[in-house]
Amino acid sequence: MRTRTRQRQPTRRATRSVSPLPGGTLLSGADALMPARVMLANPACNLGESQHCEHVLVDRELNKALYGYEGMLQARFDGVDETLKAVAELPRDEGFVARAQQLACTRLGCELPAFMLQGPWIAGLDMPALYAHCLFEMCRHSVAQAPQEQQSWLKGMAIDDAFLTECGYHTLDITPCADGRLQGVLPFVLRIAPTSDAVVLKAYAGALFDIELDMADWSQRELAQRLSGRRETRYLKMAVYHYSSSKPSSEGCAAHGSDEQAARDAAIDRLRQLRNGIAQAFGAGLGPDVLLLGVDTDLDAIRVHFPDANGEPTATATVDAARIYRETLGMTAEQARAHIASAVEQVADKLRSTGRAGMKALIARLLEANLSQIEYVIQHHEGRYESLGHGERFICVGDPIDDLQMRNLYYFAHLDTLEEGAACVDVGMHIFEKLNLSRGFPIPVIVHFSYASVIPGARERVIERGERVMSAIQARYRDRMPSGMIKFALCVSDATGAERLALVRECVTNAQAGNSEGMVS
Amino acid sequence: MRTRTRQRQPTRRATRSVSPLPGGTLLSGADALMPARVMLANPACNLGESQHCEHVLVDRELNKALYGYEGMLQARFDGVDETLKAVAELPRDEGFVARAQQLACTRLGCELPAFMLQGPWIAGLDMPALYAHCLFEMCRHSVAQAPQEQQSWLKGMAIDDAFLTECGYHTLDITPCADGRLQGVLPFVLRIAPTSDAVVLKAYAGALFDIELDMADWSQRELAQRLSGRRETRYLKMAVYHYSSSKPSSEGCAAHGSDEQAARDAAIDRLRQLRNGIAQAFGAGLGPDVLLLGVDTDLDAIRVHFPDANGEPTATATVDAARIYRETLGMTAEQARAHIASAVEQVADKLRSTGRAGMKALIARLLEANLSQIEYVIQHHEGRYESLGHGERFICVGDPIDDLQMRNLYYFAHLDTLEEGAACVDVGMHIFEKLNLSRGFPIPVIVHFSYASVIPGARERVIERGERVMSAIQARYRDRMPSGMIKFALCVSDATGAERLALVRECVTNAQAGNSEGMVS
Repeated sequence: MRTRTRQRQPTRRATRSVSPLPGGTLLSGADALMPARVMLANPACNLGESQHCEHVLVDRELNKALYGYEGMLQARFDGVDETLKAVAELPRDEGFVARAQQLACTRLGCELPAFMLQGPWIAGLDMPALYAHCLFEMCRHSVAQAPQEQQSWLKGMAIDDAFLTECGYHTLDITPCADGRLQGVLPFVLRIAPTSDAVVLKAYAGALFDIELDMADWSQRELAQRLSGRRETRYLKMAVYHYSSSKPSSEGCAAHGSDEQAARDAAIDRLRQLRNGIAQAFGAGLGPDVLLLGVDTDLDAIRVHFPDANGEPTATATVDAARIYRETLGMTAEQARAHIASAVEQVADKLRSTGRAGMKALIARLLEANLSQIEYVIQHHEGRYESLGHGERFICVGDPIDDLQMRNLYYFAHLDTLEEGAACVDVGMHIFEKLNLSRGFPIPVIVHFSYASVIPGARERVIERGERVMSAIQARYRDRMPSGMIKFALCVSDATGAERLALVRECVTNAQAGNSEGMVS
Repeated sequence: MRTRTRQRQPTRRATRSVSPLPGGTLLSGADALMPARVMLANPACNLGESQHCEHVLVDRELNKALYGYEGMLQARFDGVDETLKAVAELPRDEGFVARAQQLACTRLGCELPAFMLQGPWIAGLDMPALYAHCLFEMCRHSVAQAPQEQQSWLKGMAIDDAFLTECGYHTLDITPCADGRLQGVLPFVLRIAPTSDAVVLKAYAGALFDIELDMADWSQRELAQRLSGRRETRYLKMAVYHYSSSKPSSEGCAAHGSDEQAARDAAIDRLRQLRNGIAQAFGAGLGPDVLLLGVDTDLDAIRVHFPDANGEPTATATVDAARIYRETLGMTAEQARAHIASAVEQVADKLRSTGRAGMKALIARLLEANLSQIEYVIQHHEGRYESLGHGERFICVGDPIDDLQMRNLYYFAHLDTLEEGAACVDVGMHIFEKLNLSRGFPIPVIVHFSYASVIPGARERVIERGERVMSAIQARYRDRMPSGMIKFALCVSDATGAERLALVRECVTNAQAGNSEGMVS
């Protein structure tokens, strides 16, 4: 049986599995892969057979590098299923452990925990525990390898700290939906470097971010600016809602009943509340700039909503990247950029938008960057993702994993406590009931929090927080989910040091649940 | 049977119960009451029979006003027990409801919820529900009446916004223990106006405040200062631990096993972590000033720990207010103030303390203010509280009730979520198992959060938070406490408007638990 990912990418990946290297070893970009011709309906590019969709502003090198990275990650995670299936098929004779380790080392690049292989024959193998452990290993490996594996595309990102500063922003606080299809929004959809210091990523189901938490973040970052004597740059809050153009009533945002307008309006409400809240609490004119984006998750094409004359987000005054793509295909780079700039100015003028030059420059850059992603989906995903819906492999709760962001790799619920974030996690669990439990697979959950090692005691406190959240999840779903089928890895990252997604403890076997005996770390 | 409070104040309160006014109606101060002579052992004043403990720096008018207020509140809350006992003794014939309402109106100044009196005879009266409802009514009544009832003493507080500014502080962030014996720390022990804008009160079991939350508060208030162009004043964090000089090993701080040194050292650790955390995160020298106080809860006498040459809190370099009282008794006001100033300077010099003139002025004022409270306990509580231990009447979780603060009136756990504050609430529940459940009384819990009405949607969000915390408490103690014996009132206060301890909903009967039917509001 082919895995879901392989079903999505049937022909072009076929050669990969015969590689002698562990699944997911990075080859040199995606050089060997032929660019696909596109004949599918796509609002950006719906040309006849004889023409290529090749837009002058698309960064083809970057697309190649991202495609290579995407394929490698998919193969690495697919490797978990394949390898463990092979382990399950091995005879459990005296050579079993050695052969299983051999398989794991060759295909996954890691050993399996010996105690999980050495149980008595009566107990059988705990495959869900092995599965969760290996999946967590692949996450940690991907993060550890990120500096090498992301090198080819990270430097090509269209939007980074320097560009944000140029646009007049010290912070880009971005809230997409927690939905897995939005988890590639930074590096893929918007070509924003996810490791930028200026970028703060906080995903919530339905993009319903926490006003009070955002106000606290705003204060801390504004204060830090003022303390370092910088007063010329601003805080930008961006909310990203999503919808499906192919199946609008079933594959849109679940938190808003797959209703595109409801998702959009809810995001507008939150942005208004945040902006006005800060203005009321700290002074008129101090509210952050706000920007609203919509993403068609079938195409990864964005729609930018302009702020109006008062700086408030608007429902209808938008520029669509897919339309820009179609309108500018065949132009020179200069013509295409002029067209984008003019489209931005036109909408801004119509609204008498207060957007400053910096915001307009950022919008234009977001649109241009998205043209690359539109063509990426055209070239590498047949113009429209084959899998329109969920395909996440795990749930991440807590803080974002900066070094591991890709469409449908995971569902991400930003939270400090389950008490506040339960609605988000409920949505994630519901998705995984269908995706995993229905097939006998467990639900892997990475509880991940970041700390600043320069702050005394911060690591200990963040581990306490993680333990609290883990216990709270265990308690909440104890009666709602099959026993032992939620598997945990508690991880921490150091925002001011080198530690990244470091494992504090794993809780994948029944012996590990509720205590720290038999820890794998 | 006399109530516990009456047992504590046997002779001087005896005339009160014959008053035709509802229990707890404020008479003019405490004029009619004779000041008591003191012959008990007290480190501040242990004189022979022929002498009065009357210190020149004691504000006797203020003490009188506070004593009147304390007696009135005690009587008001005692009235709940007495009135309901009388209601329980009434024959349940056709005149029962009218007579019960008559009693409640006369003695408590309020009606009882009719539906609680009109149940079928087979069900009996739900006395725990009536008790919790009446107690919540008395709280709300006390807060509503606070402007009138506190007028006589609020204006006399030794430390208010103006004085704090004079000392160079824009904020006094104070964390006492959650213990009820510390809930009079502001108006009584330290004579700090609890309604001051500069004062932020956050009680935690063992004074173990939340570093990250404090850093967020620090940022918001520092930023607000800088935005209004004020840069000359600072943030002061004060932690208050406690101990019992009479029964050190049983009536000290429960969170630290009644170990005075452990309580002190834990507070020092937190203060250091906060100070260094802010310095590391925002810049050297930016950490707040810190101050550590110890309170002997038998006497309400304070001990001030000085910061050392680096501004860090110290364990041993202290000034004791009880000693100051004894040393300066009999002096003129000028001599006594000079003595206090010299004691402060001496310790500061010995440490080469970095405490600026403002901090020294504040310490001197705290010591002087505490002399009044020491004499208050001498005059009005026989030199040492008769009840050394717990005597709380309810639990408050969430934000502080600025307008209702008194020793042993309630246990206060500051929290945003039960997930983070569970340890604090556990301690409170444990106290109430002994205090109330053992006698068949329920555990009344006020879930109280403050919001700023100028911020759009803040009230709705704070109610959602309250509902979350209430549900979380119900879930946590469902199997640990007798069914239905935790009673709730969810209340909110507007930090920027007039609403104070407004009832959102009560949940005191079984019908109200888990839904909003039969709401009393």
